[in-house]
Amino acid sequence: MNQDYIKPDNWSIIEEGFDTESVKSSESLFSIGNGAMGQRANFEETYTNETFQGSYIAGVYYPDKTKVGWWKNGYPEYFAKVLNAPNWIGINIEINGENLDLNRCQAVKNFRRELNMKEGWYLRTFEAVLRNETEIAVNVKRFLSLDDDQAGYINYEIVPLNKAAKITFKPYIDAGVHNEDANWEEKFWEPLQVKSQGNEAFVTARTFKTHFTATTFMHNSIFVDGKNQNLTPENTTQSEDKIEFAYTVNIVQGQKTSIQKIGGYTVSTNHNDTVYAAAEVMKSVSTKGYDQMLKAQADAWSKIWEMSDITIDGDVKAQQGIRFNIFQLNQTYSGKDSRLNIGPKGFTGEKYGGSTYWDTEAYCIPFYMATKDQQVARNLLTYRYNQLDKAIENAAKLGFKNGAALYPMVTMNGEECHNEWEITFEEIHRNGAIAFAIYNYHRFTGDYSYIPEKGLEVLIAIARFWHQRATYSAHRDAYVILGVTGPNEYENNVNNNWYTNYLAKWCIDYTVEQIEKIKSDYTEDYSRIMSKVTLNDAEIKQWKAVSGNMYFPYSQKHNVYLQQDGFLDKELVKVSDLDKSQRPINQKWSWDRILRSPYIKQADVLQGFYFFEDHFSKVELERHFDFYEPFTVHESSLSPCVHSIQAAVLGKMDMAYTFYLRTSRLDLDDYNKEVEEGCHITSMAGTWMSIVEGFGGMRIKKDQLHFEPKIPQGWDSYSFKINFRGQVLKVSVHPNETRFSLEGGRQLKVSVNDKEVLVEPNSLVTV
Amino acid sequence: MNQDYIKPDNWSIIEEGFDTESVKSSESLFSIGNGAMGQRANFEETYTNETFQGSYIAGVYYPDKTKVGWWKNGYPEYFAKVLNAPNWIGINIEINGENLDLNRCQAVKNFRRELNMKEGWYLRTFEAVLRNETEIAVNVKRFLSLDDDQAGYINYEIVPLNKAAKITFKPYIDAGVHNEDANWEEKFWEPLQVKSQGNEAFVTARTFKTHFTATTFMHNSIFVDGKNQNLTPENTTQSEDKIEFAYTVNIVQGQKTSIQKIGGYTVSTNHNDTVYAAAEVMKSVSTKGYDQMLKAQADAWSKIWEMSDITIDGDVKAQQGIRFNIFQLNQTYSGKDSRLNIGPKGFTGEKYGGSTYWDTEAYCIPFYMATKDQQVARNLLTYRYNQLDKAIENAAKLGFKNGAALYPMVTMNGEECHNEWEITFEEIHRNGAIAFAIYNYHRFTGDYSYIPEKGLEVLIAIARFWHQRATYSAHRDAYVILGVTGPNEYENNVNNNWYTNYLAKWCIDYTVEQIEKIKSDYTEDYSRIMSKVTLNDAEIKQWKAVSGNMYFPYSQKHNVYLQQDGFLDKELVKVSDLDKSQRPINQKWSWDRILRSPYIKQADVLQGFYFFEDHFSKVELERHFDFYEPFTVHESSLSPCVHSIQAAVLGKMDMAYTFYLRTSRLDLDDYNKEVEEGCHITSMAGTWMSIVEGFGGMRIKKDQLHFEPKIPQGWDSYSFKINFRGQVLKVSVHPNETRFSLEGGRQLKVSVNDKEVLVEPNSLVTV
Repeated sequence: MNQDYIKPDNWSIIEEGFDTESVKSSESLFSIGNGAMGQRANFEETYTNETFQGSYIAGVYYPDKTKVGWWKNGYPEYFAKVLNAPNWIGINIEINGENLDLNRCQAVKNFRRELNMKEGWYLRTFEAVLRNETEIAVNVKRFLSLDDDQAGYINYEIVPLNKAAKITFKPYIDAGVHNEDANWEEKFWEPLQVKSQGNEAFVTARTFKTHFTATTFMHNSIFVDGKNQNLTPENTTQSEDKIEFAYTVNIVQGQKTSIQKIGGYTVSTNHNDTVYAAAEVMKSVSTKGYDQMLKAQADAWSKIWEMSDITIDGDVKAQQGIRFNIFQLNQTYSGKDSRLNIGPKGFTGEKYGGSTYWDTEAYCIPFYMATKDQQVARNLLTYRYNQLDKAIENAAKLGFKNGAALYPMVTMNGEECHNEWEITFEEIHRNGAIAFAIYNYHRFTGDYSYIPEKGLEVLIAIARFWHQRATYSAHRDAYVILGVTGPNEYENNVNNNWYTNYLAKWCIDYTVEQIEKIKSDYTEDYSRIMSKVTLNDAEIKQWKAVSGNMYFPYSQKHNVYLQQDGFLDKELVKVSDLDKSQRPINQKWSWDRILRSPYIKQADVLQGFYFFEDHFSKVELERHFDFYEPFTVHESSLSPCVHSIQAAVLGKMDMAYTFYLRTSRLDLDDYNKEVEEGCHITSMAGTWMSIVEGFGGMRIKKDQLHFEPKIPQGWDSYSFKINFRGQVLKVSVHPNETRFSLEGGRQLKVSVNDKEVLVEPNSLVTV
Repeated sequence: MNQDYIKPDNWSIIEEGFDTESVKSSESLFSIGNGAMGQRANFEETYTNETFQGSYIAGVYYPDKTKVGWWKNGYPEYFAKVLNAPNWIGINIEINGENLDLNRCQAVKNFRRELNMKEGWYLRTFEAVLRNETEIAVNVKRFLSLDDDQAGYINYEIVPLNKAAKITFKPYIDAGVHNEDANWEEKFWEPLQVKSQGNEAFVTARTFKTHFTATTFMHNSIFVDGKNQNLTPENTTQSEDKIEFAYTVNIVQGQKTSIQKIGGYTVSTNHNDTVYAAAEVMKSVSTKGYDQMLKAQADAWSKIWEMSDITIDGDVKAQQGIRFNIFQLNQTYSGKDSRLNIGPKGFTGEKYGGSTYWDTEAYCIPFYMATKDQQVARNLLTYRYNQLDKAIENAAKLGFKNGAALYPMVTMNGEECHNEWEITFEEIHRNGAIAFAIYNYHRFTGDYSYIPEKGLEVLIAIARFWHQRATYSAHRDAYVILGVTGPNEYENNVNNNWYTNYLAKWCIDYTVEQIEKIKSDYTEDYSRIMSKVTLNDAEIKQWKAVSGNMYFPYSQKHNVYLQQDGFLDKELVKVSDLDKSQRPINQKWSWDRILRSPYIKQADVLQGFYFFEDHFSKVELERHFDFYEPFTVHESSLSPCVHSIQAAVLGKMDMAYTFYLRTSRLDLDDYNKEVEEGCHITSMAGTWMSIVEGFGGMRIKKDQLHFEPKIPQGWDSYSFKINFRGQVLKVSVHPNETRFSLEGGRQLKVSVNDKEVLVEPNSLVTV
């Protein structure tokens, strides 16, 4: 770990003490979101030291022009940038004529942040001594409503501690924002209109090029001693992209004043008249009022936790970690809006353009399948089905024919929006994860209907891609896949990445099986699909020729599959023999050095062993784990979870626990020295897997839940719930027993350490 | 070839007939430059159809911010962009109230362009019928003075053919220009001042970030029937970045009016007060006047041709091709200003940021050595010596230590200014060419003094780089160089590129030799250098361990060195079996497809055979030529020249001739379908080599010129001159004899087909 300032707590993320060095980290960690919007934990008031300002609206992006040294055919002309959205949280505070700025106070005391995950709010409290000697206590609570997802609420309270104070609240909204990663402060929002009425203000701005229009709004009320003063702004300052109100109150020492600010966005993707819609939102939210909204927020989160909570007894840090992960996943993606997906930074940063990566299929779907209605997972699959035409177009741009599809590495709307050739053009294994998710969805839910209805078309297009992408090597008398980037992105443009070759073969074989099944069992669907895709036996025969004679690099000496051709030419120095000052290598080493090193960013061969566990023996798994893990630097957030699961399978429980801590507290403890850029959202679903599939040993085999429960030393117990085919199974693992209880109407047969156990509805079974 | 509209002519490039489709190509081909500035052959008057506007000032660039999908450690934060400079050639023309625009005329007749290479001017003539029925004849001559290299002259003549005409000349200068490759019309010039005085105007603008200030100026005179009308502008239109004058004359049918416009740039790199300097330039140039300046231009070019001309009798296209190449090289780089270098597009386009590539050392130095004073070549070497510290810094950024240097792939000022990892970080062979040029300079000029004075420090830094860059492979028990891009940029991040490995070994061995020689023969230099670089025997021993045990990929089956590991895994389909519709592959195929194909962009293994011809037998050369040439697509301008030379060595004269035409007429005939982006300047030096070293068989061996003259079928004769160690040898090759004559004071021994020949001063020897 690289930081340790977050206080252990079962339900909250807590920081105590003010440290300018940790402000940007905390801005990421204390981020809040509600699926539709979110923001970093920036201070409401002025702050003149280092900060990374960020507010984000789901689905609103900007197509930046791809600019490269030498243009390569096939580059997407534009790529989607996650946009910093207008700021509505801003409230400048003047105390006895001095602007409050924690960077310029004589002293800041008792500074504390709390992200209350149980109830879904963020609280900041502190006391400050201003340069004018006024001492104040401040208490700010903020939340983004889950129920009214266009709005958020801030309650900003101030008490002067040592004298009377004239306090001016200056709430503002500001569309004059830019991205951290912009070129020379380039702006992406064009201001259209600034308007105010009473205590409400509206700033409407439109993104350049994509023309998303968003009205950012605020509604303010000023209180003294809890009583609404019914003030209207004494002053309004306005420019083309910003508006600020001023409200002044005079209070005596010890008296409390506060501003309650409602703010948020209404966006043209949901409304024709965003200003009118904003007024409606404010009317509704202000009518409910702060207390009722806060209560509703706690209730909404309670429902989420009811289904998705994982408890860990006897290890507060482990408990805090898993809840942080589950909380962030739910802040990022609610499953409500089928146009959205799970952005890798959620609403916590602007890094990684686009919202949809293979992370969704490879890591997130299991979490959403098990903790939400299965429709949510089906929607995520459908998202790809809806983008199949674009994936076919995308493949055609790269020269593939006949309906072959290559899904984009990164997308907002189905088009590729990443633009590095080694990723976009070569990290083609994503196509395999998308096929695997179809298999996985069926395996888990038992809902085969998705495949004849939609999935098979996706599978056929993907099989076509793999068939065309492989080439025959006379030299090897086998099919090879040249020039790829595997899951380990610390290798680029390699030949015969084992994971990719294996997945390609599996995709073809699985697709052929489904074609045969649908041909015999779903004849109507079969005719519809075949008339659409014009597939004949000759083509399928060609596919099989490739899948039946695929080359897999193998080392006789080490008795392992090689990650790719040439892996053994490297200087095979283990990570443990690497000087600590060299880590993380992605910050310490230049890219070429990383590429020629043996170091593995994330599971690659082992990712294949994870997907296709049944294809290999435990002995084989162990040999590959022991060969590759020592070279793995886990600098991808997606790495430790897979290693945790496999260590658990192999009974290496100490390692499994270490990897669990690393995945669950990746951001809290900032393992990769980059949390200030934002949190790693998609890997958080991997954390969930490391408990459920790793420690719990949960698998689905032949329509049945299997468990091989293990418990890390030092844990008293842990529990999780599985939404399995319409019933909810609660699993509670203790050192010497596992308890199962079922919310549902039908008895459920599960397998525990290969023994069958019958769980009756609403009764407890202890194994 | 892809176009054939350029009329064959010994001394001129000629286009006849107006075709909107070829405007952008012609704008490249008819570009003019004088080493300090240049411009594409854009029309002076309004043109509303497709055009690529470009004016350029040598050494003036803009650092664009590197923006990539995922940042990789080691990327340069900025890269130098070739900037479109303010336009000073613009003259809008109004004829009887209608704006002249060749895109909107009723008819354009007898349109003709001529680039007169003998005298260094560009002429455009045409007749046009305007929509208002006025017919006019136009004759525009333009040149950029070699002697006064801050100024150019335009003489724009109009004769109304069918009626009297009121003609308004509207000359302007405009700093409101943008680059074609800019993001959303982004501008790079900040206007500072617009000023006018009488017939002169000044627009001063400064580049953002780099803060180069340039004053663009114009001076206009209006003539009727050759008589200066001494008009002053009747009207001036001015904005913050543009100024336009208006002058009206009324002339009768058949009468001639003209505007003579002087224009150009004065730049802050040469002047403190650029406006004052501009006034001085205009004073001097206008005093001399158009006719005298034009005469001086012809004289200056005559001097250049006197030394550098190559004549070919019996093949006009071949003659035109080589002169076009020599002309463009001299337009691009004069050798006058040691801060400048030879940009790959010269002043003909904005593609490829930066000015200095390995092209300078690998291709250009031989041309400048043989056709200019040897000081010019030494200056080019010194340019790298002066940037050694930056090259060491650059290597340090990538993790190299102890004074190892990696020269930038592309630079303006010594810093890397290209920003694709596969090029910048991995195309490290450039370091080898820089060392080779030192060897080559000494071999050609006999001037060893450069090595103890400057070259050895460069060599040591380069040897250190290679030593550190190689890694030991236990698997192969040899040193390998992993993760490189060779000269064939259609492979990226490959292992053990043979050319790179071979060059690395040679660099170390050559450096060790020079250290030993300087230690014994130049003891003072030796002490000075050693105290600076702190090199000891132990380090040299480590170098030798690497160079003595370098791995070279080899195929026993084909009996050839392999371009890189894994080359044989590809589908080895020859270029001749590729459908023509697929060519050029860099426009038809996506990058990943190119990478996994066997196709070679430019000589790679064969480049090594070119540099180190003496290390291999002709049989070996032939085997490698026959193996690699069939996979070579020559989509780099740098490819055909090397193949032409080697085909000539192997006596494959038909191939040699075909490659010669391809290299010499690459742009004229647009082989690679991209001439509209600009011409390929640096490869033009390769064209020179293909005659002198290819057909002429010129080599330097042991301080002596060697020739093995051959002549393509159909040529009556060809001749070239070699400035060899202070004397000029003219070589004239005929089918059955070669004639040598010497301008100089000492007799010269040369070898012709391995027989020694004595050439006496100022006498002819026929062999």
